Amino acid sequence: MSYLKGNCKKLKGQVTLPTEIGMDKEIAMLYDKWGCDAVRDCDGTKLPDEIKKLAEKVYSTFFPTRGDQAWATEHKDQAQELYLMSEYNTAAADTLEIDIMAGYFDQQFQIDTVHDPKEWWEVIDRTTGEIIDPSCWEFDKSTGKVIISNTKKYHNYTVGFLVYMVWDPTQMFNHITNNWGDRPHEISSDICHEETRKNMLKYLEDWLNEHPDTDVVRFTTFFYHFTLIYNQLGMPKFFDWFGYGSSISPIAMEKFEEVKGYKLRPEDIIDEGYYNNPFRIPSKHFLDYMDYQQAFVAAAAKECADIAHRHGKEAMMFLGDNWIGTEPFGKHFKKIGLDAVVGSVSYGAQIRMLSEIPGLKYTEARFMPYFFPDVFFEGGDPLKELNFSWLAGRRAIARKPVDRMGYGGYPSLALKFPEFVERVGKICDEFREIYSNIDGDKPYSAPFKVAVLNCWGKLRAWYAGCAGRASGYKAIYSSGQVEESLCGMPFEVEYISFDDIKENGIPEDIGVIINVGAANTAWSGGANWLDETVVSRIREFVHNGGGFIGIGEPTACQHQGKYFQLSDILGVERELGYYLNYPRYGQLSTEEHFIMKDVTTNKISFGEEIPWVYGNGKDEKILSMSGDYVQVAANSYGKGRSAYFSGFEYEPENNRLLLRAIYWVAGKENEMEKWYSSNINTECHAYLSSGKFMVLNNSYESQDTVIYYGDNDSMNIKLEPMECRWFEI
Amino acid sequence: MSYLKGNCKKLKGQVTLPTEIGMDKEIAMLYDKWGCDAVRDCDGTKLPDEIKKLAEKVYSTFFPTRGDQAWATEHKDQAQELYLMSEYNTAAADTLEIDIMAGYFDQQFQIDTVHDPKEWWEVIDRTTGEIIDPSCWEFDKSTGKVIISNTKKYHNYTVGFLVYMVWDPTQMFNHITNNWGDRPHEISSDICHEETRKNMLKYLEDWLNEHPDTDVVRFTTFFYHFTLIYNQLGMPKFFDWFGYGSSISPIAMEKFEEVKGYKLRPEDIIDEGYYNNPFRIPSKHFLDYMDYQQAFVAAAAKECADIAHRHGKEAMMFLGDNWIGTEPFGKHFKKIGLDAVVGSVSYGAQIRMLSEIPGLKYTEARFMPYFFPDVFFEGGDPLKELNFSWLAGRRAIARKPVDRMGYGGYPSLALKFPEFVERVGKICDEFREIYSNIDGDKPYSAPFKVAVLNCWGKLRAWYAGCAGRASGYKAIYSSGQVEESLCGMPFEVEYISFDDIKENGIPEDIGVIINVGAANTAWSGGANWLDETVVSRIREFVHNGGGFIGIGEPTACQHQGKYFQLSDILGVERELGYYLNYPRYGQLSTEEHFIMKDVTTNKISFGEEIPWVYGNGKDEKILSMSGDYVQVAANSYGKGRSAYFSGFEYEPENNRLLLRAIYWVAGKENEMEKWYSSNINTECHAYLSSGKFMVLNNSYESQDTVIYYGDNDSMNIKLEPMECRWFEI
Repeated sequence: MSYLKGNCKKLKGQVTLPTEIGMDKEIAMLYDKWGCDAVRDCDGTKLPDEIKKLAEKVYSTFFPTRGDQAWATEHKDQAQELYLMSEYNTAAADTLEIDIMAGYFDQQFQIDTVHDPKEWWEVIDRTTGEIIDPSCWEFDKSTGKVIISNTKKYHNYTVGFLVYMVWDPTQMFNHITNNWGDRPHEISSDICHEETRKNMLKYLEDWLNEHPDTDVVRFTTFFYHFTLIYNQLGMPKFFDWFGYGSSISPIAMEKFEEVKGYKLRPEDIIDEGYYNNPFRIPSKHFLDYMDYQQAFVAAAAKECADIAHRHGKEAMMFLGDNWIGTEPFGKHFKKIGLDAVVGSVSYGAQIRMLSEIPGLKYTEARFMPYFFPDVFFEGGDPLKELNFSWLAGRRAIARKPVDRMGYGGYPSLALKFPEFVERVGKICDEFREIYSNIDGDKPYSAPFKVAVLNCWGKLRAWYAGCAGRASGYKAIYSSGQVEESLCGMPFEVEYISFDDIKENGIPEDIGVIINVGAANTAWSGGANWLDETVVSRIREFVHNGGGFIGIGEPTACQHQGKYFQLSDILGVERELGYYLNYPRYGQLSTEEHFIMKDVTTNKISFGEEIPWVYGNGKDEKILSMSGDYVQVAANSYGKGRSAYFSGFEYEPENNRLLLRAIYWVAGKENEMEKWYSSNINTECHAYLSSGKFMVLNNSYESQDTVIYYGDNDSMNIKLEPMECRWFEI
Repeated sequence: MSYLKGNCKKLKGQVTLPTEIGMDKEIAMLYDKWGCDAVRDCDGTKLPDEIKKLAEKVYSTFFPTRGDQAWATEHKDQAQELYLMSEYNTAAADTLEIDIMAGYFDQQFQIDTVHDPKEWWEVIDRTTGEIIDPSCWEFDKSTGKVIISNTKKYHNYTVGFLVYMVWDPTQMFNHITNNWGDRPHEISSDICHEETRKNMLKYLEDWLNEHPDTDVVRFTTFFYHFTLIYNQLGMPKFFDWFGYGSSISPIAMEKFEEVKGYKLRPEDIIDEGYYNNPFRIPSKHFLDYMDYQQAFVAAAAKECADIAHRHGKEAMMFLGDNWIGTEPFGKHFKKIGLDAVVGSVSYGAQIRMLSEIPGLKYTEARFMPYFFPDVFFEGGDPLKELNFSWLAGRRAIARKPVDRMGYGGYPSLALKFPEFVERVGKICDEFREIYSNIDGDKPYSAPFKVAVLNCWGKLRAWYAGCAGRASGYKAIYSSGQVEESLCGMPFEVEYISFDDIKENGIPEDIGVIINVGAANTAWSGGANWLDETVVSRIREFVHNGGGFIGIGEPTACQHQGKYFQLSDILGVERELGYYLNYPRYGQLSTEEHFIMKDVTTNKISFGEEIPWVYGNGKDEKILSMSGDYVQVAANSYGKGRSAYFSGFEYEPENNRLLLRAIYWVAGKENEMEKWYSSNINTECHAYLSSGKFMVLNNSYESQDTVIYYGDNDSMNIKLEPMECRWFEI
């Protein structure tokens, strides 16, 4: 075994550079310095000819739904639509007038008066849940109000109604954020209208003819934007990166009925005003609608990709903006026939969102920070964000690399920070070194798979963190942080859903199941935990030697005397105001436990922790408490084991706590110290076919660590800050 | 108006003294010093003749169910019974053996093998909730095991079974606590057996004949003990001061069917192992059972009281131990025909539990501390507990006095603390002074009533604190602390239930409704908040000018897009993982608010606070935040108002915060400064018919305050520590 001192020859390629008008010389310098092989025209930036000639590959951005604004403004009745729910209005008399647009941004939405409200809208008594017969209400176009008669006094009513989206949400977001003043508002057309679809395809043909230098058509993205709803003040009201809200229309409702054989209600989309956000336990109707829309989007996106291919160009999708229906882990995605997907990466799990996408020629990560003035101002510290993003992404790349990387924004801004420019070059080299050393090999993994169980399963694998990005989400923190920890761990990870367990049982290669999330959300599972097949199969799995880890409010759903339905496995239960007459004897276990060996701080901190969790008072071991409540517990169940954490936050000590818990509940704690680095700030990844392994220093300080390599060997090494060191086996 | 400097003449009476063998001279001294007029024989203590002669009244304790141990041990099959639920047992094969007594204390319980298990027990699949057909299980007497066949693999099963209680829980508690070694275990007999009832009545007759000097028969108490269940180690497993667990038997089940016309299931009593504890939303069947048992107990207790009366003695009930079925605010209590009720008092709300009891000649409070060695040890500070108990009780006495007071325990221990003995004398004097000054007058109250709304209503008025006493209860803290605050406030307080609102609407004299408690408990109300009549009537009440205060998780039950069903009134909503895509604009209101005027500390602390509460982003005012979450908010709704607190803890600043909130939501903030003392450590109570008012210093320091008396007058005074100062109007 010897230390691999680089490959000596300077690596080049796999890096995409953003361009900027009037910066030809500087772009050429950066292109060379960072070893780039591709350039892209940023939004609103045309590519200089000099740069086009320089680059091996040119990416150009194409907007399928709002590229042709002439068409969009002439066909406003083919604009994209949404179902909105009015505010709750209380009937204080026999009739009630509801100003349905109250609370919404009138520059974003206009009420759809084309389609008959009586046919397409729904008025609901929210006190009882009853649908109000359309004969009992009228819509007054002139005032925008719905007048309900024969109301029940002091019941609350809502109107679910259709609106046209008269301002594309991405353009609106940029417009408002950057104070674009009277620049025209762009509209997105809906390709479910045959005319619009044909126009869009023709527009793409024309666009391709006008872009002979383009090698890669970067679709941004396809047809339906994730949900962004603004309030009457033009401030965010509802953001859902997973939201199907903007994909609906009377045509979609009709086509759905043809395909699925039943009619959707507006309420199936409105969902009590929660709009089927990713925290909601998905209904059968919503899952059907997603499937319908994914199939529809894939078919239309395939037409786009096919045209690009006919023009001899690659088709690349940007994983963002109008991405609804293109879920890369969904069953229709492959049909599109894309060559590549690019996405931006703030943290490690997002690498896996990209690198795990099946059926592509390549994937590409756009790392943080964007070269934008919010970070690149005088006195700013872009280097800090650069290193953070790289260290977070690197450990995920070690598990499953993306094929390319790049940055975005204005190079002129980056150039004002020479240290930043130097460090990007080093990062690009490090990326290429890792990629070429891994050389397509699978990293060494523990001899069992880890499954993350929630309502979404594979469809939203590695996506929990995204659900928490928009603004101030609660009760998703732990789910995202567990993913962040897992994305760089030596495990093969699978995402499974409750339906998977019901239909197919638990695959034999799964060693550990993790359930993490807040009660009654899609992440924890809610009423799925009342399903006898689900709980029986998991009990059987653990009883026969499997491992189970519950974090936050795992298996939670009040039923038959329990809140945690697998309280028997977990060894802990959460009080929900029913069990309060039971004195609790939860006492900290005094014995040393494998799980806790790397906890050296006095106090574990998980960020958002769930209180009121108690030990069952049987054989469980309470390993850490937060006040009166269990923070970490371990338990045995038949031949299997379990662990409970009251929450989770990704940081070195907790990362190691989870690693140890996974090995321990799997009953494989003796396997942990293989291709293993003892210091909690470091991690080791081995590529046995390639005959190499690397040790990562995930911290900004130098670290001493013991590496356990092969079967029985170990050695002490010292790593430089942020170092990635390679060894030959 | 002038300062009332005592009544000069030394008051005497209204105080009961505990006695002790061999302390005749000292007892006589204390009797005189404290101005006593009654003595009682403590448990296990015979009254010396000298003392009997001294006292105007003698109380003697009678135990209806365990007084006659000869009978009890000869008739073990007439001992009291309980339904217990076995532990959850997982079927890992086609048959499952359950050791039904596992986890229970075999010295406390013996399995009832007299009554046919197939008829009286219930085996339940807790994974599905299904009852297992009795043909599929057998009970093996020799092993104490139930063997279930044809089980579903990896489902959990429980057995609900009958046991005889072979050790009276109070005696057991004392026995274990005081290490009584091989002193015989006492058994309580069940008067539902005709033989036992007759024997008990005869035993009472005999006892009365043997106690000619007794003036007051102090029944301790009647027939059924609150629920105390011990685990296999002889440690508390389930304590419920309200529990009907120990009142059940096959006879009770049969008589219930005769009276109510339908059969109870064991599960109606077992209630998924929660045993209908006071946090549970009561089921119709359990409410029927309570009613049946209260009627039965009242009828039998009346027989006891009648016998005492025939012997020329008063009948007094101790509000504790075997009190089940005698709920003093229940509809059957008056039928007993008691003369008096005595109870122990640790805090103020307990005074109201006693003093509000209707239909008695008098009530009596036994203050803390008991003269027991746990407090009266060398170096102990009994004076501190004495003052705490008195100050807590005094402000409740100011609102509605008990008629008598006293202490319990061993006078010999108290005598070792001369300062304590002196202070008790002062407290007795102060009690008599307050009582004689109030002279039966009603205290001045705000011109509206305050209603506390929960599932129990009047039946458990002032009892929430008791639900929290046993050990480590959670999620009841705020409910009890609100009561503690209310018990000394200038409001007439009513307790109302959801059924009251459904059946009778909201009484016109109610100005403010308070709902305080944890979600899905009887205190908050759970699914009652889905009842359209309940929510409509409260909305109407507030819309027309009423006030509503929600504390903790008020009106909470997920339904139709809301978690707080009266979120529209409260102006706040709690996230439950569904609403997470809505950015929140909850910002602290900058305007001065009436509610907050006495908050001077930087940080309000409510003890147990509910997180994840947000403003609706409409017109609500957020007055205090705890991190990102709302701590105090105020809102308007129609002509009415509301306030929200994230929790509550009784202490001077919070006490005043609640007072102000009540006046403000009632729209009567201009009425607050009448018979009012400005300093938050003080309170003022006026008795207009008696022409007097008093100012209480609730603190241990001297306090300066402004008194607002009459309509427009005010004056500054300085109160001594703990002072109670009287004024003539």
